[in-house]
Amino acid sequence: MLRSPYNTLLKSVCFSLICFINVSHADVLNEAEQKHITTLKQTSINSDLSYQLIESLTTEVGHRMVGSEGDKKSIIWAVNKMRTLGFDKVWTEKVTGSYWSRGEVEAKVLLPYPHKVVAIALGGSVGTDENGLTAGIAHFETLKDLKAAPDNSLNGKIAFISYRMERHIDGKGYKPAVKARVGGASIAAQKGASAIIIRSVGTDDNRIAHTGSMRYKKDVKKIPAATISNPDADLLLNQLKRSNNVEFYLKLTSHPDPDSVVSTANVIGEITGSEFPDELVTIGAHLDSWDVGTGAVDDGIGVGIMLAAAHHISRLPKRPKRTIRVILFAAEEVGLLGAKQYVEAHQDELTKHIIGAEWDFGVGPIYEMRTGVGVQSLAALNEFAQYIKPMGVTISKLNTAKAHSDMSLLSEAGMPSINFAPDGSLYFDYHHTENDTLDKVDAKALKHNTAIYTMFAYFAAQSGVDFRK
Amino acid sequence: MLRSPYNTLLKSVCFSLICFINVSHADVLNEAEQKHITTLKQTSINSDLSYQLIESLTTEVGHRMVGSEGDKKSIIWAVNKMRTLGFDKVWTEKVTGSYWSRGEVEAKVLLPYPHKVVAIALGGSVGTDENGLTAGIAHFETLKDLKAAPDNSLNGKIAFISYRMERHIDGKGYKPAVKARVGGASIAAQKGASAIIIRSVGTDDNRIAHTGSMRYKKDVKKIPAATISNPDADLLLNQLKRSNNVEFYLKLTSHPDPDSVVSTANVIGEITGSEFPDELVTIGAHLDSWDVGTGAVDDGIGVGIMLAAAHHISRLPKRPKRTIRVILFAAEEVGLLGAKQYVEAHQDELTKHIIGAEWDFGVGPIYEMRTGVGVQSLAALNEFAQYIKPMGVTISKLNTAKAHSDMSLLSEAGMPSINFAPDGSLYFDYHHTENDTLDKVDAKALKHNTAIYTMFAYFAAQSGVDFRK
Repeated sequence: MLRSPYNTLLKSVCFSLICFINVSHADVLNEAEQKHITTLKQTSINSDLSYQLIESLTTEVGHRMVGSEGDKKSIIWAVNKMRTLGFDKVWTEKVTGSYWSRGEVEAKVLLPYPHKVVAIALGGSVGTDENGLTAGIAHFETLKDLKAAPDNSLNGKIAFISYRMERHIDGKGYKPAVKARVGGASIAAQKGASAIIIRSVGTDDNRIAHTGSMRYKKDVKKIPAATISNPDADLLLNQLKRSNNVEFYLKLTSHPDPDSVVSTANVIGEITGSEFPDELVTIGAHLDSWDVGTGAVDDGIGVGIMLAAAHHISRLPKRPKRTIRVILFAAEEVGLLGAKQYVEAHQDELTKHIIGAEWDFGVGPIYEMRTGVGVQSLAALNEFAQYIKPMGVTISKLNTAKAHSDMSLLSEAGMPSINFAPDGSLYFDYHHTENDTLDKVDAKALKHNTAIYTMFAYFAAQSGVDFRK
Repeated sequence: MLRSPYNTLLKSVCFSLICFINVSHADVLNEAEQKHITTLKQTSINSDLSYQLIESLTTEVGHRMVGSEGDKKSIIWAVNKMRTLGFDKVWTEKVTGSYWSRGEVEAKVLLPYPHKVVAIALGGSVGTDENGLTAGIAHFETLKDLKAAPDNSLNGKIAFISYRMERHIDGKGYKPAVKARVGGASIAAQKGASAIIIRSVGTDDNRIAHTGSMRYKKDVKKIPAATISNPDADLLLNQLKRSNNVEFYLKLTSHPDPDSVVSTANVIGEITGSEFPDELVTIGAHLDSWDVGTGAVDDGIGVGIMLAAAHHISRLPKRPKRTIRVILFAAEEVGLLGAKQYVEAHQDELTKHIIGAEWDFGVGPIYEMRTGVGVQSLAALNEFAQYIKPMGVTISKLNTAKAHSDMSLLSEAGMPSINFAPDGSLYFDYHHTENDTLDKVDAKALKHNTAIYTMFAYFAAQSGVDFRK
């Protein structure tokens, strides 16, 4: 849901099909410009540039967790790529975070039937002591059930939440599942638990656990928090069916170090506008990743799409009227730190952010365009829609969209936004796992998506439409 | 290919469609017996007994690597299950093997781009020294290429074979891939290599490496042997494209201990024949597994099918004429040790093994029945085929089949054999990996396959046909 007063108003004014029925074909682009769009589409579909960029990033840099060597290398990599790819301006903006070390994990069922468990620490978790922790399992199907447990009822126990994320094309299974990952530890601690383990927030059946960030409540004891793989969660449930006394061993050597500040950076590049250089069409992705795969999907794909889109546009005979700004955000995974820095640092030019779209949603092809713009400008976007309808992309009737991830903060700050929604059915098989590697990138879908972002960026930069209106 | 003189003769006599064209419907079973077949089919399709047995084995026992606690527990588990399920006789036969410890593995690319590699030791491999081994990679696309390398050309190197197994419904991609796993180490050692890493023999794209057995040649230096996951092999190739000096670190703490004898056992149970108790219809599977998953697919499924089949038959009003012998073989994964013991110990009654079939090929539904029997008895099997044709099972025109895995040794010793061939497309995604867990069992295919084995065992035991003729 959009939260700014501007967008609330917009939502109340235009919340139905009527907006789309009333808009006519606006002919925002002239014939030559329309030809450019067609050229950009063909170029993107025929090019494997976005794939090659992901291949380069994952091979030469690897994972890019905040504070890691890969994070530092990725900044240099991105700056160099932007320079090579024909960007007119390239710069970085410092972002700071705090250091967290994953350490090692060891997890096993001791009783009734010994079994080695595949587990992973959640980002931000404290560790156990060096000998690990042995305790009985207190099982809850959902976070709600854990919340309902009486105080002190989990003293000396390890809480286990077994809720399984559902697979949906739009990823809507994530929200009800992820709240246990983010907030479960402090709820369990309030009930007296010594640690918490959570079924991985993922849709796969691999013996690979999904990491992700978690947060502790203030003034609540910090307890270790880990997830276990889906098959291990299944097996644990089968043991719990047989015994009320399932004993578990957990050792985590992870530790946050809030006093140790690590420095990273947003990497920003521009194709400078030929007529209105201070008007910004922003497209973006996040450059950081978790440390367990190579961040090919999350968000190497976004990085590849945005760099390729800007490059293809840079090859046109003339720069579009407005500036296209590519923002590769830092530290998304640990709390949108790069996006927060950007919004703060660019307060003075926020109104110059004409429209924006991010990519941070995996491998599938885009099937829907969702808008979050001024009502009058829907006519122009309806014109743009004619280019992507033949590619199987429908247009949502709602006009309430925010941009993905980092850029949702810009949406909330009033930037008109587009959300290109892909088939997310497979995304949560790989999300935040060791399995996030290059082979998961769907080369065909990537070309489809690159073409859409390329055309969108050109259209928005060339059209002169005020998407706030 | 069948190797016994008996079967070679058989093959030359009947190697065409003509055999099947010439056989008529033999009416081997009378009307009451035919009704029993129908009852057994319905019972199997409606029952989840085979699934529950796999659930029990994987939950209460877990993995069953030779020499492990699980291996010992599985023998007790199987004996108890057979007793509970209505077997008339149950016994064990001692099998001995030698101890091998997997230890720990650490693998990473050091140069040009540091990357942590997911690897696993091959069964039987020696370890590196305690500090591990750092060496340049010498890459070969196939085992043949490695064989062609000059002597001493790999001095101080780690050989890497990148051949990728192909996915096929009948699993035929396995044979050309597995030879590098089994024999690669000694070939590499002969060329001077310090260690060998091999792309996992598997069809998946998970960051999970596939283990499996390997063998050293006599009088060749034993070098450490490991596989790496498919995505890691891809990434290594991408680094090799960029650099001739890819430096790799490998540490294995695995070690074989040939002097340490471990004891395990074949577990055998019988539904004793009511008329010809010394004539044996054998159905089997292997009870052991690798130590990385819970051995649900390999070969918990086989164990579940065979126990359930015998149980369903035991519930008929009368025992079939011949004995149905269920053999749960020990130590299949480490070289068919249980099967070798069985063939040796049962030399005197080998001719009483009327016909046999094993299951050791994963999760998919059976789509073809392959025979390896006497020509005259094809008529009877053609009658049996009428029961499974409506289930989508075709009959192979060749008559050269061996039973799966362990029982192939009995086939080679002259036992008429059936190979029920399933869709093996997914099998090598899970084979010998941590991913071999209960969730991979396809409950519907399992019922289909259990029904076929149940009907087959009853048919062969009740029919009185001499399948050698």
